Amino acid sequence: MFYKWPLLKTLREYDRSQAVRDLLAACLVCLLLVPQALAYAQLAGLPAVVGMYASILPLVVYALIGASPGVALSFGPVAVLALMTAAALAPIAVAGSAAYSAAAVGLTLLVGVLLLLMGLLRLGFVANFLSHPVISGFVSGAAVLIAVSQLRYILGVSADGLTLPQVLPALYAQLPAVHRPTLLLGGASLVLLVLLRNLSVLGVPTAWALRVKQLSALLVMLLAMALGALLQLEAYGVKVVGQVPVGLPTLGLPNMELGLLRELLPAALLIALVGFVESISIAQSLAMRKRQLISPDLELLGQGAANVASAFSGGMPVAASFSRSAVARQSNMATPLVGIFAAGLMLAAVLGLAPVLRHLPQAVLAASILVAVIGLVDVSTLRHTWRYSKAEGGAQLATFFGVLLQGVEAGIMLGVCLSLLLFLWRTSRPHMAVVGQVPGSQHFRNIQRYDTVQSPSVLSLRVDESLYFPNARYLEARIGELIAVSPEVRHLVLICSGVNQIDASALDALEAIAEQLKSAEVQLHLSEVKGPVMDRLQRSDFLERFGGQVFLSQYQALCTLDPESVLRALES
Amino acid sequence: MFYKWPLLKTLREYDRSQAVRDLLAACLVCLLLVPQALAYAQLAGLPAVVGMYASILPLVVYALIGASPGVALSFGPVAVLALMTAAALAPIAVAGSAAYSAAAVGLTLLVGVLLLLMGLLRLGFVANFLSHPVISGFVSGAAVLIAVSQLRYILGVSADGLTLPQVLPALYAQLPAVHRPTLLLGGASLVLLVLLRNLSVLGVPTAWALRVKQLSALLVMLLAMALGALLQLEAYGVKVVGQVPVGLPTLGLPNMELGLLRELLPAALLIALVGFVESISIAQSLAMRKRQLISPDLELLGQGAANVASAFSGGMPVAASFSRSAVARQSNMATPLVGIFAAGLMLAAVLGLAPVLRHLPQAVLAASILVAVIGLVDVSTLRHTWRYSKAEGGAQLATFFGVLLQGVEAGIMLGVCLSLLLFLWRTSRPHMAVVGQVPGSQHFRNIQRYDTVQSPSVLSLRVDESLYFPNARYLEARIGELIAVSPEVRHLVLICSGVNQIDASALDALEAIAEQLKSAEVQLHLSEVKGPVMDRLQRSDFLERFGGQVFLSQYQALCTLDPESVLRALES
Repeated sequence: MFYKWPLLKTLREYDRSQAVRDLLAACLVCLLLVPQALAYAQLAGLPAVVGMYASILPLVVYALIGASPGVALSFGPVAVLALMTAAALAPIAVAGSAAYSAAAVGLTLLVGVLLLLMGLLRLGFVANFLSHPVISGFVSGAAVLIAVSQLRYILGVSADGLTLPQVLPALYAQLPAVHRPTLLLGGASLVLLVLLRNLSVLGVPTAWALRVKQLSALLVMLLAMALGALLQLEAYGVKVVGQVPVGLPTLGLPNMELGLLRELLPAALLIALVGFVESISIAQSLAMRKRQLISPDLELLGQGAANVASAFSGGMPVAASFSRSAVARQSNMATPLVGIFAAGLMLAAVLGLAPVLRHLPQAVLAASILVAVIGLVDVSTLRHTWRYSKAEGGAQLATFFGVLLQGVEAGIMLGVCLSLLLFLWRTSRPHMAVVGQVPGSQHFRNIQRYDTVQSPSVLSLRVDESLYFPNARYLEARIGELIAVSPEVRHLVLICSGVNQIDASALDALEAIAEQLKSAEVQLHLSEVKGPVMDRLQRSDFLERFGGQVFLSQYQALCTLDPESVLRALES
Repeated sequence: MFYKWPLLKTLREYDRSQAVRDLLAACLVCLLLVPQALAYAQLAGLPAVVGMYASILPLVVYALIGASPGVALSFGPVAVLALMTAAALAPIAVAGSAAYSAAAVGLTLLVGVLLLLMGLLRLGFVANFLSHPVISGFVSGAAVLIAVSQLRYILGVSADGLTLPQVLPALYAQLPAVHRPTLLLGGASLVLLVLLRNLSVLGVPTAWALRVKQLSALLVMLLAMALGALLQLEAYGVKVVGQVPVGLPTLGLPNMELGLLRELLPAALLIALVGFVESISIAQSLAMRKRQLISPDLELLGQGAANVASAFSGGMPVAASFSRSAVARQSNMATPLVGIFAAGLMLAAVLGLAPVLRHLPQAVLAASILVAVIGLVDVSTLRHTWRYSKAEGGAQLATFFGVLLQGVEAGIMLGVCLSLLLFLWRTSRPHMAVVGQVPGSQHFRNIQRYDTVQSPSVLSLRVDESLYFPNARYLEARIGELIAVSPEVRHLVLICSGVNQIDASALDALEAIAEQLKSAEVQLHLSEVKGPVMDRLQRSDFLERFGGQVFLSQYQALCTLDPESVLRALES
């Protein structure tokens, strides 16, 4: 399908009332985005202001290229990507150093270039290999990991580490060194945040409670900044965000070694995929509600360019955020141009906040992260998956614990591999049913589920799976078993209604089966072969060589091979 | 299924005429096995007599546990496994050293233990992941590699290496150092072997020509041994097999380090799988012809125990050999006890040949390997696969060249990964067809292939693939596209006749689709859902929540949702 430049269409229909709607939506976005941008930068191990930088130029670039208003509304730094960034950079440099910031820029650039490449090569489908249980287990595990990693800021101690087995003992060892003023501040922020987010429980009208909830992080941070500036909290040993460069980010890239980029490549690929999955889910769910089309490839290009822009403004990886997508659903009349308004507001915020930002205590940022990510721990999906399929629930749990115990990258790789193995395992042992004719009808059903009439000389076997190499030998074995216990059978009809493809191995197996059946004086036939499968079979000489017939329906097969049995079934 | 100890059944029916048949078959086996055992041991970098040792005890053990006479007839050292053994041991020790022999025993032991474990845990299906094109590409590549690796013995030079880029330049560099007497001997053996194998072309009656062909390797070797003993070829600098321990192998294991075994584990796993695939194919093809059952797990146990036995007698990995399975087909009345007769004959051969074996020139062994393996290069399967599916042909070619350029292990891993990716790629973009009613019938067919009547308000979409995570989003996108261009549609019926499973991700996608369609004022329905899929759906609350109906047939669906359109189609 061909998509025109989406901005053109937007601009042609743009008027003042739409501009007002977009501006209002942008205000709402920024109220959420400012505190998250600051906090997620800290989570990634970067100066807080980097999160703000990553919320200006990338938003403009996405607005110019991307097509989904939902993505435009929730674009910016994301908690999970921030954690993945920290995990990717930890082995390379010390958080806070210039080398660390340079590596972060390199990582962001790689993420952008990979997304652009995936868009140009139309490789967006790769993201589909992250199954829902794996994503859910991954996000839950990452959320717990993020929450635990922020405890050190609230306790005022240093305890590095990227997995629970690293962080927990370090925290435990540091407990005697807890900095009490920091803990007081962090604890108070936590209490205040929980309070402000749950006003409805205290009887405040829902509409007001919701508004306060959305503003809670910003309110607490502004309060903390004012407090920090008034009381000079640094003097008490409370760690603060510290000196912030006044004004705009300088555009450009630091020097980067090729070796470093190569080292960051696997992490960048995972960040690109996870970011894209979040964004495309939001884009797709909004588009279908409005009967609109989306182009995954265009989304890839828009997000790729936005990440490149983030790299050039000294930022961090960006994507659409699930936690801000609620805003997107509230402002469903917005256009992608909302990103440009939001970028303008973020720019004003950077300039306006810069003088007071340095007084913001890290413990308050940590408290806001903690409260935000705990909501990402998703037990209901796990329960849901588990009830539907124990195996998939197991994969989800494995991903969750993999993330906690081995880190984000290992966890997600484990989940993807388990999901694929599970699918291959299931398709390698396909469901097969011997079917018989339902009395008085032309229908054929599983003889173990229904009362049917079976022909003594014709064995009808329905295969409920595509035939391909992992199950080719299984089919051979199963037919061998059936034939061994049915000495009277002279015809075997394979019903292919559930066979969506037959690969070369399965074709070889069918040829071998046909030939071996002949030695046992049984003729193989096929029925209900699908169009695309038949097209492919005609490219081989199987149809001429196997000696049997291909019937359009199983009824027709039995009418030809054993009409007496058909009559018996129709009359009974 | 429960299998009794197969030997019991054999023994109960055993009589003198069967014993004679088994003895004759065993004689035929040994005539082929003696030269191959000697040659493949050399190929594996081991003393030639090790191949003989590996053809005694393992055959007895397989006869006692295994069930397939076909496997019993073709059991022993195998060319491809010998090459894999050489590849696995090359990085660990120098061929010919005591450490090398000890490592070979360790590898064989691991292969045996892995096969036993796979049998006990019923993991035989793992072997199915080696698809036919991959096996064919692998065997062809290995055959070329084996042939090239033997050239150095015929040229009388030393040129080590396990891939073409290693061996070819080394051979080229050594060309000036060619040992002329060796080349003369090797060349003469090659010519004689080719001649003896193609007597039918020269007008000799087919039956005689076939007998001579089967004996050719043994004849040439006996001739060479006599010549070597008479002329004392060692004195001319011709490399010979050398001192052979007279008598039986001593039973026992050398000391082995755990670290070494861990290092050998991946190679052992591949050898176990490849060996098992060869054996099970032979067993299965013979069993079906005779309407007999085989138990893959029992085969695994038999072959595992045989490899352990091979390790204890200082041998090398063993399996059933494709190249000797022709004998199996000739002697299709044999019982597994044939292995015990063959072992006895091999024992006699070891004792009888030991005095002269040391005079056998390595160049003659190399010539017999070369002639044997060239027949394994399988171009016709490649042509066959390529015509059926370019992608699978590509995977086969990639395996072939992977083996040649990167070695046996890398090649086979490449092939397996490509095959799996290919299947996942295909299933991730399933074939979907919008269907309409065939005029005057109750059948529904693809509107692009057939002239059909479509209801304006009901969209019927047939999905020709299981729904699972790699294609869940694709389904969502495809339905989004269809709905965006069909503003009049009020019902969407998903025809699930080709849907063999629905995983948790796809279920989530269906729920999201149903909900989003509702926002667009379209109701989702399902039709022709299979029993096992329906069972699983009933474990979730999807069926209550999606708001649509599940129809037994598509005809029933349209009769309910748009009876007018059905009437129109029936009357037209």
